[in-house]
Amino acid sequence: MEQKAFAEGKKWGNVRCAASSEPAQFTCLPPLSREAFRENADYVYLCENETIHGTAFSHLPDTGGRPVVSDQSSLFLSRPCRVSDYGLIFASAQKNAGPAGLTLVILREDLMGPPPDPKTPSYLRYDLHAQADSLYNTPNCWAIYVCGKIFRHLLETGGLEAAAARNREKSGLLYDFLDNSSLFHPIAAKKDRSSTNIPFTTGSRALDEAAIAAAEQAGLTGLRGHRSLGGLRASLYNAMPKAGVEALVAFLRDFEEIPG
Amino acid sequence: MEQKAFAEGKKWGNVRCAASSEPAQFTCLPPLSREAFRENADYVYLCENETIHGTAFSHLPDTGGRPVVSDQSSLFLSRPCRVSDYGLIFASAQKNAGPAGLTLVILREDLMGPPPDPKTPSYLRYDLHAQADSLYNTPNCWAIYVCGKIFRHLLETGGLEAAAARNREKSGLLYDFLDNSSLFHPIAAKKDRSSTNIPFTTGSRALDEAAIAAAEQAGLTGLRGHRSLGGLRASLYNAMPKAGVEALVAFLRDFEEIPG
Repeated sequence: MEQKAFAEGKKWGNVRCAASSEPAQFTCLPPLSREAFRENADYVYLCENETIHGTAFSHLPDTGGRPVVSDQSSLFLSRPCRVSDYGLIFASAQKNAGPAGLTLVILREDLMGPPPDPKTPSYLRYDLHAQADSLYNTPNCWAIYVCGKIFRHLLETGGLEAAAARNREKSGLLYDFLDNSSLFHPIAAKKDRSSTNIPFTTGSRALDEAAIAAAEQAGLTGLRGHRSLGGLRASLYNAMPKAGVEALVAFLRDFEEIPG
Repeated sequence: MEQKAFAEGKKWGNVRCAASSEPAQFTCLPPLSREAFRENADYVYLCENETIHGTAFSHLPDTGGRPVVSDQSSLFLSRPCRVSDYGLIFASAQKNAGPAGLTLVILREDLMGPPPDPKTPSYLRYDLHAQADSLYNTPNCWAIYVCGKIFRHLLETGGLEAAAARNREKSGLLYDFLDNSSLFHPIAAKKDRSSTNIPFTTGSRALDEAAIAAAEQAGLTGLRGHRSLGGLRASLYNAMPKAGVEALVAFLRDFEEIPG
């Protein structure tokens, strides 16, 4: 998504890629210091949790005060977030917040204003949406209603601190297994691992496929890795219970012990 | 919405207003012949059913072969439509098709292609959405599911011919009353009346307000006219049953008979 965002940004602005881990096949985060950013940069864009390779920022890079614009789609509501550290946060609802077809945006007021380019389509203007209290168009009412239910449920079950603890426990179970497995190994570098999206592989495409097929037989679905990467991937969004991760680990342990 | 569409079109293209009924306070459709359109116009845009003043095209104007781009939001699925007469039809779902947060687009294939302006945001490119089978982004799945249910229900209840007959009957009931009422009169010119949105007034703001308040007491809600016009408005979308219109007419008849 970062590459798509970069191509999109190039249409309208003078954008530069400050850092990329493409040389490492995106399996880690690139080193980032404030020198990586241009002196006159208006903002720094990043995708805080990358779902394909399973990397995540554990803390924001030092941007020297430049506002951070973060795609938090797959991270939002999975852990506490100090909103004041950001210029803009956006997150599609369908990971942790609610049904698909809705995007949540949190924007610093001083960054909101008429766009410099008068060609900007009105629908893409945050200032107009804000002025209209998010009713500039008729929105996805049902999704907003369901998000409200989920927000309330999160508050009633300990808030984001508790959600983060649950997610650490879930991802810890799976990483512990993978780090000690003789067959499966995780894709992402240990220091940059996501707690949400955990891609892993046997290193053999045939064996990966056999594992996916056997998992489906066992009722464990949705484990196919992103088509650009292959392998397996477990996505441990808030809605995945600990029991689901335990079942996955038990399955993988059994699969590992099948004499190959 | 036509005025908003015009302002939006001006940002990106050389648009001209071919006809407007603004001099008649939008209470009728402007006369339209093919001479109204520029020789080299790429398309003719219109809003086929205008919800505020309650006007509707009963047939498409002669555009001399120029493709018609129609906002059918408040008309879609209320009556049969010869899709091949159009270049592009778009309709927000929340009138007759399903829940809010979804827009349906029917586009002639030869009109679909990369946009002339490379700055066009990808999200607004119909060609990309079509190439991706409407999965360029993660869409409003639930709304699509519900629309499918409603399409099936429409097919099972006689299709759009039957829907149109029901809507003619419903609007006929209300117009018959209004045309013979000594108190209420419809806003739109008879020849251009919408079967869906029927604004009407007593001619007195105070009396209109009294009627809206009394209607709400009687359980008839949502009758306030658009804020730009005032008065009352009945919206007879597919989901409004004939019994609802009968109840409204009975209420208006009673109200009319209160000695003022």
